[in-house]
Formats: sequence, structure tokens, C-alpha cells
Amino acid sequence: MSREDESSTEGSVLLPRGFLAGAVRAGVRPDIDKLDVGILYSQAPCTAAGVYTSNRVKAAPLLVCQENLGEGRAQAVIANSGCANAATGEQGLADARQMAELAAAKLRIRPSDVLVASTGVIGTLLPMKRIEDAVSRIELSAAGGPDFARAIMTTDTRPKCAGGHCGRQSEAYSLWAVAKGAGMIHPNMATMLCFVATDAPLAQHYLAACLREAVDASFNMIDVDSDTSTNDTVIVLANGLAGGGPIDDGHPAAGAFRSALTDCCIHLAKAIVADAEGATKVIECAVEGADSLADARKAAREVVRSLAVKTAVYGCDPNWGRILAAVGNSGAAMSEEKAVISISALGNGGVCVYRGAPLPFDATQARACLGAPEVRIRVELGLGDSAATAWGSDITEEYVRLNSAYTT
Amino acid sequence: MSREDESSTEGSVLLPRGFLAGAVRAGVRPDIDKLDVGILYSQAPCTAAGVYTSNRVKAAPLLVCQENLGEGRAQAVIANSGCANAATGEQGLADARQMAELAAAKLRIRPSDVLVASTGVIGTLLPMKRIEDAVSRIELSAAGGPDFARAIMTTDTRPKCAGGHCGRQSEAYSLWAVAKGAGMIHPNMATMLCFVATDAPLAQHYLAACLREAVDASFNMIDVDSDTSTNDTVIVLANGLAGGGPIDDGHPAAGAFRSALTDCCIHLAKAIVADAEGATKVIECAVEGADSLADARKAAREVVRSLAVKTAVYGCDPNWGRILAAVGNSGAAMSEEKAVISISALGNGGVCVYRGAPLPFDATQARACLGAPEVRIRVELGLGDSAATAWGSDITEEYVRLNSAYTT
Repeated sequence: MSREDESSTEGSVLLPRGFLAGAVRAGVRPDIDKLDVGILYSQAPCTAAGVYTSNRVKAAPLLVCQENLGEGRAQAVIANSGCANAATGEQGLADARQMAELAAAKLRIRPSDVLVASTGVIGTLLPMKRIEDAVSRIELSAAGGPDFARAIMTTDTRPKCAGGHCGRQSEAYSLWAVAKGAGMIHPNMATMLCFVATDAPLAQHYLAACLREAVDASFNMIDVDSDTSTNDTVIVLANGLAGGGPIDDGHPAAGAFRSALTDCCIHLAKAIVADAEGATKVIECAVEGADSLADARKAAREVVRSLAVKTAVYGCDPNWGRILAAVGNSGAAMSEEKAVISISALGNGGVCVYRGAPLPFDATQARACLGAPEVRIRVELGLGDSAATAWGSDITEEYVRLNSAYTT
Repeated sequence: MSREDESSTEGSVLLPRGFLAGAVRAGVRPDIDKLDVGILYSQAPCTAAGVYTSNRVKAAPLLVCQENLGEGRAQAVIANSGCANAATGEQGLADARQMAELAAAKLRIRPSDVLVASTGVIGTLLPMKRIEDAVSRIELSAAGGPDFARAIMTTDTRPKCAGGHCGRQSEAYSLWAVAKGAGMIHPNMATMLCFVATDAPLAQHYLAACLREAVDASFNMIDVDSDTSTNDTVIVLANGLAGGGPIDDGHPAAGAFRSALTDCCIHLAKAIVADAEGATKVIECAVEGADSLADARKAAREVVRSLAVKTAVYGCDPNWGRILAAVGNSGAAMSEEKAVISISALGNGGVCVYRGAPLPFDATQARACLGAPEVRIRVELGLGDSAATAWGSDITEEYVRLNSAYTT
């Protein structure tokens, strides 16, 4: 498979074979005029897998996903924005189940084949009457992807989709993925949601493994504000309508599918960071030469998490001391004598600012790199062969304003 | 011992028996006009103990402290602000050792009995000529504590001292402690430093255990911006001049000394948070009913770390969803059905906002609590008997401005 085969396209509108989507405005929040309830549906039953928040407070829809995904099969997702249906107790759980039932009745499938996701305010109940009315009005179509993408947005300023394909010409699979962003949101906590649809035929255990790997390399490597919400959910539905035997570890297309799924997730993860509340740029940190993959990931994540680094990048300050200290603070094995730090940007070769000791460097060029929309920090640890990349947003006065100005 | 016996006094100027201190302006940073080199000295040799940063990048002076505190004895501390002497390689280590030698020569003690601490810019070398000149000019006196406190300040807006005493009248011990604040600082990373002097006679292993316990309950329970610097150091010197046998686990004054040391450290830890860059208030989170002390500490720390909570408190938003999610995110065992959350402030009884489910509450009163200079969040987990308290600053536009406006 060439790189072109798996390239992702932002804003892709093409749903894979057999998938339909649609959305309407239910008025979950009467004060906000936007699409807020959507359905993603496959005409054929799907092999499915999910990854959920590590937060111990889990929202009701997430519990319903866990129930319904028990057998690794599903056929539809119903999602809403405006209300997270979290910390809502028994009533919340009943409401989430009813959402599945409403969608199932409309689609003439079993409620247990419907997954449910919600994002928005915590601690308030869903307006079920309005949801019921909305579900009856949703029109599903092969062109409904962008509407579905808009229906799950909260503070996102733009919809986030990715499309890709993989496999050889005779056996081509397509993927379509949609996400909405993380970042705390007034009046309450926001959520990261992602749904992937593919017409590839997948063995369930292989699909679950591919999704875990994709999430670890993408959504688990981004940082907006170091918070993990109660509703974070990533779901993949594979309907197999492209034909062929199930893709498993030994299948010739296995690697290509795995890469394509990871690429889609990385594309969306970066889109979430780029659209973070109040952010002005994306910080990419690539750690190389680490002792282990776990260490490489810890170090890269800590650099993009550090408020000191986030504020320095926002201010275009080539402050390598903060980067070095973040790596030292990550828990990853490292030695300041062996570490090398450089700063670059797309189209700007960059400057090495630290090589086991402070280096004299061209501060003007370093500041130019830091002024770019995507700043790249490379940390070479010189200890082993493992590498990882993380992405984070910078932090700005506007972030603080957005997250404090609201009063419940 | 009554509570009065161990009460701490902010800005205490009284050094314990046999301790002298002093400071001058060396001009470590020629652009900043302040005291920047100080010495704290005991006329008698001291039992000593230290706790250092967990960051893998350790500054040169910290390495010298570890070398010289090997035997658990010391007699003086020399400290400077303006330059952290971190990431400075072999030359930095030689400079830190020379600082110890300069102080030792002045005080006519062994260099190995001198501890060294630095705070300020990372990656630049100390101006040793100016430090040498400064050491010769320092005049030590029993009234020199406040000058020493000023000499270690960086972005701190005020010196931070605490005094206390403990023990019965016939066997009274006094403590004096000084600290400087954490919080990232332009142009580089700041540091938390704390030095405690006491005339109590201590067995070294008991002193080390008391210090570890005090640090775990104080400096390890505060959060300004979730970063751990390369220079963080807490040192205690006990010269025993109050007389009596060494205080050990079985000694009648053991508990009193332990409490007094912890109280002094908590007092200073809160003072650091209250003086955090750009902060407008202190957030105190008390977690009760946890399964274990480790869980109670994790949960309390995560609440005061969460940017979502910090910004909500800054904006006086009684946003309990963010508090519940932070507890859920902490890794501590918890159940949202059992959790109870209330918000209060000194002199304001407070309001319960969540009890296993959202509660209707008086938002005006909740906002009044959140407008206080010290906001108290109480989380009852209902699982066990363990409790812990953490303190954090809120986060403001001013924090972002302070940490990004500077360009190296």
C-alpha cells in the first residue's frame, strides 16, 4: 500500500458502502440553534469495537455502549450534543436505553444493536420528548456524514471528519471517521467522541486490537488541558460490505487496515488539538531514542502537557529549559548529558537548542519556528530505539476566559 | 501540647538558638535589584535531612546537597536566586562545590558541612566572581532571617517565613522555616525551596522520617501548575542547642516535634499557593471517607490540579461536575452514587451541591463562597476512613500573560 492509498481527507463526505447518516435539531439546549441529534447507520450488521474513558465517573450512554457491545456487534449509533447525560443516576440510564430503543424502532433493528453517545452539560436530564420527536424527523442518506459531524459538535468551531482507503484495487476498503473535540467547555465538561465506519470485513478481536492501537497512538497522545471527561468514547463499525474474508492478523490487508485506522485517528486527534478552546497553534513533540515505547510516550505527552511549555510556545519563547524539565518530569528514563532538543516548523529546518548542554542558537530562527501554526519539538534521548509523537495545544488568556467567564 | 504551642507565625523573625543568617545583593542578575545570596548558619553542628525534586534533571546544587548530606550532618546553607545552576554540566557542579567552599571558608567549617541551593534561570552559569565577593560581604546575625528569606525570592511577591515551638516549658524547642514559591517563571523555571532550622535535638533517622512525612502532607499536596522543577529542595537543620537527649520515636516530645514540623511546612506550602503567579485565591480540597491515604491524596490533588476546577473557581462558578469528574479522573476508588460534594469558605457555612446525584442548591451562596480568598471544597467518598487535604491556586489570564509574554 502506498502512502497515497491511506491518505486522509479532512471534511470527507463519502460514507463507506452501506452506511447512512443524518441529523436534525432537537433543541436539547433550547438556547443553542444547531443540529444536535444524529444517527449513523449501517444497512448490514457490523463487527464493532469501542474504547471508553478511564474516568471512574462514567456517563449513562457509555454504560449502554458497554452493555450493547458485549458481543462485539452493532448496527447504528445515536448521538446527541447539549447534554452529557452524566451524573444522572437511574433516570439517566433509562433515558440512554430509551435513545437506543427510539433509534432501533426507526431503523427496525434490535435496541441492543444500537450504541449511544452524549456530550454537553453534566448533571441534567435529557429532554426525552424532544429527542423522540427528533429521531422521527431524521432523514438518513449516504450524504449525511457532514450533518452527523455537526450534530455532535459542542465548542468545536468546525466539524472534524477524515476519510481513507486501503487495500489493493481488487479488494479496496474505505473508512470514514468523525470526531468532536475535547477541552473543557462552559457550562460543564466537554467530551471527545469519535466514530469510525468502514466497509472492510473484520474479525472482531482483530478490530478491537487495531482500535486499541490506533487510540493509543492518537487520542491518547493529545493534550488540551490534561482532563479526561466522563463521556469519552471511540467506536468503530465494520460492515464488511466490501466483501472478502474477515481481516485477521494473518490476512494480506491486515497491516494496511491497521495503518489506515491509525492514520484516520491521528488526523482527527490533531484536528481536535488544532481546534482546542483558545488555542493558537499545535505543538507536536516527537521523542526518539527512548528506552521503551512507554517511556517515549510518557516523555512526549509530558512535553505537550506542561503548562510551562504551552505558555512558552504561545509566547514564541525558545525556552528549552522548560522542555528539558518536562522530559525529566515525565518519569521516562533520561539523562541530561545525552538529550538533544531541537525546534522546527513545517518548511523551516529548525534549530538545535540543547545537546547535552546549552547550545548557542539563532534565537530569531527559533522564534520564527515557534510562530508557526504547527510547532515541532524533537527530543532525542540517546538511550534506545523507541519513538513516539504527541500533540498538544498552546494555552492562552482566551482559554482561561472561555473556561471561567461562564456562571452556572 | 496544645494547638497554641505549635502555632506558626507568618513572617516570624526569630531564629532558634545558635542560628544566624544574612544576605547581600551579589547581582547574579545585574538587571534585578534585590538581595540574591544568603547564608543560614548554625554555631553548632546539626543533624540534617533533605528531600529533593523527583525530576530526573537535577540541578548541580542539589547534587552537592546529596553528597554533603550523606552522613546526615550539616552546619550551613548557602543559597542564591537569579540562576538555577541547572543543566550546566561539569562547570555547574564545580561552581556549586565552590559555593560550599566559599561559605565554609567564611564560617571556618568544612565544605562538606555546607548545603547549597540555587533558583532562577536554567542553563546559565553562576557569576562566581560576584558570588565570591558577595559571600565576603554577608553579615550574619540572629535577626538575619528576613533578609535570607528575601534573598531566595524569585517571582514571589513576598517573603515566606513560619515560626513555631513545641514541647513542654522545661523542654521547649523552637522552629523557624523559610520558603520560596513554585510556579513557572520567566525567563525559565522556578523552584520550590524550603529551609527549616530548629534547636531541638533530633536523632537523624527520626528527623528524616518527620521531614518526609511533613513534605508529603504539605509541599507534595500543593499545585500551582503541575510542574516539578529541577531544583526543588527541602532541608531541615537541627542543632540540638535546646538541650536534652535526642528526640526519637519513643521520646515524649516526638509527636509534638513531628506535628510542629508538619504545621510549619503546611503553613509555607499554603503561602506558596497564595502567592502563585497570577492567582487570585487559594483552593483547599479536603477529601474524606477514602479507601486509603494514597487514594485520599490522589483525589484531593487532582481536584486542585484540574484546570477545569481552577478556571471554574476563578470564575466563581459552582460547577460541581468538574469536581466530580476530577475525582473520577484521579485514579482513587470512588462511586458517584456515594460521593458528596460541598463548597464553603472561611466564615461561610457553605452549600452541599452533590449527594450521590445533583442537588438543588442556593447558587448565590455558592458563588459567595467561591468569591472568598480561600475556597474550600469538601469531597466525602463514603468508602473508608482516610482523609487528605490539598491546596491549589486558581488560574487566570494573568498567569498566562506572565508565563508567555517574556521572550528569551
